[in-house]
Amino acid sequence: MTRLEDLPIRDDLRGRSPYGAPQLDVPVRLNTNENSYPVPDEVVEAIGKAVAAELRDLNRYPDRDALALRADLAAYLGHGLTAEGVWAANGSNEIQQQLLQAFGGPGRVALGFVPAYSMHPLLALGTGTRWVPAHRGVDFGLTVGEAVAQVREHRPDVVFLCSPNNPTGTALDPAVISAVLDVAPGMVVVDEAYAEFARPGTVSALAVLPGHPRLVVTRTMSKAFGFAGGRLGYLAADPAVVDAVQLVRLPYHLSALTQAAARAALAHRDALLGTVAAIMRQRDRIVTELRRRGLRVADSDANFVLYAVDGDQTLAWQAMLDHGVLVRDVGLPGWLRVTAGTPAETDAFLAAIDQIQRAGLPAPQPRPKGT
Amino acid sequence: MTRLEDLPIRDDLRGRSPYGAPQLDVPVRLNTNENSYPVPDEVVEAIGKAVAAELRDLNRYPDRDALALRADLAAYLGHGLTAEGVWAANGSNEIQQQLLQAFGGPGRVALGFVPAYSMHPLLALGTGTRWVPAHRGVDFGLTVGEAVAQVREHRPDVVFLCSPNNPTGTALDPAVISAVLDVAPGMVVVDEAYAEFARPGTVSALAVLPGHPRLVVTRTMSKAFGFAGGRLGYLAADPAVVDAVQLVRLPYHLSALTQAAARAALAHRDALLGTVAAIMRQRDRIVTELRRRGLRVADSDANFVLYAVDGDQTLAWQAMLDHGVLVRDVGLPGWLRVTAGTPAETDAFLAAIDQIQRAGLPAPQPRPKGT
Repeated sequence: MTRLEDLPIRDDLRGRSPYGAPQLDVPVRLNTNENSYPVPDEVVEAIGKAVAAELRDLNRYPDRDALALRADLAAYLGHGLTAEGVWAANGSNEIQQQLLQAFGGPGRVALGFVPAYSMHPLLALGTGTRWVPAHRGVDFGLTVGEAVAQVREHRPDVVFLCSPNNPTGTALDPAVISAVLDVAPGMVVVDEAYAEFARPGTVSALAVLPGHPRLVVTRTMSKAFGFAGGRLGYLAADPAVVDAVQLVRLPYHLSALTQAAARAALAHRDALLGTVAAIMRQRDRIVTELRRRGLRVADSDANFVLYAVDGDQTLAWQAMLDHGVLVRDVGLPGWLRVTAGTPAETDAFLAAIDQIQRAGLPAPQPRPKGT
Repeated sequence: MTRLEDLPIRDDLRGRSPYGAPQLDVPVRLNTNENSYPVPDEVVEAIGKAVAAELRDLNRYPDRDALALRADLAAYLGHGLTAEGVWAANGSNEIQQQLLQAFGGPGRVALGFVPAYSMHPLLALGTGTRWVPAHRGVDFGLTVGEAVAQVREHRPDVVFLCSPNNPTGTALDPAVISAVLDVAPGMVVVDEAYAEFARPGTVSALAVLPGHPRLVVTRTMSKAFGFAGGRLGYLAADPAVVDAVQLVRLPYHLSALTQAAARAALAHRDALLGTVAAIMRQRDRIVTELRRRGLRVADSDANFVLYAVDGDQTLAWQAMLDHGVLVRDVGLPGWLRVTAGTPAETDAFLAAIDQIQRAGLPAPQPRPKGT
């Protein structure tokens, strides 16, 4: 049998494992920040009809530029955006990969303030972009001074900001975005995957777009829209950025089915986004209840909560799993991340927390690799 | 207004235009090698049902590893393949991009024998892989000697072979594949996008896979399956190659809709592939009729034909368009490529050829950029 190591793969990939949270069959799955609410019947019907209308002509390539979908996304975002300033792809991962292909790549540098979305360094690796992990301050915060100093030091071609940040959940002070734009020599990408869940008063980087052609805001329909299985990420930026991305995008990257399904979902945004307020209530409930139990918890503007555990987080993760609740070990010593879902899921999560607090963590045991 | 040139894009992208055939509204479109036959009603219904069954749970991420689809693809390919030796993505472009990310990239070299599929060098550019255009022999052929000498000279990390070759249409002598495997220091990718249209007796590189872990065969459902709008490309190789690709694939790259639609299409393969024989008849008819008119024509194992024109092919392309027939100028001086479709499309194509032969080409005129 041939082993991976026997193949002439790139040296910088040797010894690595594929990215991905464990997909385990557990009653309560709160590990990948999915929207816990299934798609409502009326939207199922609408998407089904929209997709069905495409099927006869599936022998033809889809609209390579996805113009109708981009117009719909622009209308959803508002802020005076039009299709020319919006681009769509199979998830915001593909959007960010395209940005790195156009503005990063060999001989270039991307910088992010870690911990942040863990795909950013992997996308850099996959595109041959050198990755610089910059630091955050106290409690994973990021001040203007900390951000500016590190951007000045490393002069990155691409800066990733993440607001609300993943895995901490906290939205970024817009002053940081403006300050980074002022000193960054290259592109500034603000990953707003969780923007729809932000607490009232939070300012989106979309408001900063006018007059800033080096600013890119990336979004996804996976979370607030409950469209993770449909794979639709997008960006908003100056139309010149969209021109740049079109130099590296794979032709016909977005299927006719994806374009039709996403347009139908956007047309029924009220029904889909109706879950957001309910999820925010559970998010706030988790924060409040954990703090009431004496745990340290990061402020959250997202559909998840980062909380500190007693001791080794791998043991705390296993203990939760033993109680039927799958949370995420994001690799931060002493912290775990939980997705906010339905009230019943919050009940189960808090019950598990309480039982573990009463019983204490189990003794350390060897843990299967990759979980 | 910000121009693309004002942005800090990569130097090797400056001055380039996005890839893509012109998408013009013309009665007879024979320029992108689509399958001219719409999806049959029974398959429309089956795909519609399969997709509809996914919609309620679209809030959940799809199977990251697309295992059921890969098993179905393996069963279709035969040759003793299983899911472990098959990988799927959004079109064979994404498959080949992943291969270059794993085995090419910065500091590495990819080689292809041009003219071949014009995306290969663009995928190399997009992944920071140095591209070496190797030469073909008389009438775009490729002998063992020509192939081996150039692979020995350049020692590429990735060799692209294309069988049937695009844009010439001719399948490769399997002796070339074996000889290249013997001398290539890295991976050998055989692009078999058009394999289902090959003339009887043509040997697929799938037969060469056992014992050759550095060989990869890529396929697509865009052509023979008439599934271009569904975007499904795949590869067959040693399972270790699939492991390697999983290090660079974007997580959840393949939507739940794509996986379900492709599986339904595969389940109805007899109905979909029923068009292949009809298309091959039109392909053979085009070859015969053009030769009967005294034109030079490359042997074709694909659903298209490369033929020589009198003089400047850009003028010949425009003359065909003026007669309502859109063919493809692939940038080969003196040659054009036409897709084989329905009998009526062949009629229209041959009628245009005859009218132009009688009337002669128009005088040169300035032509809009990008067409």
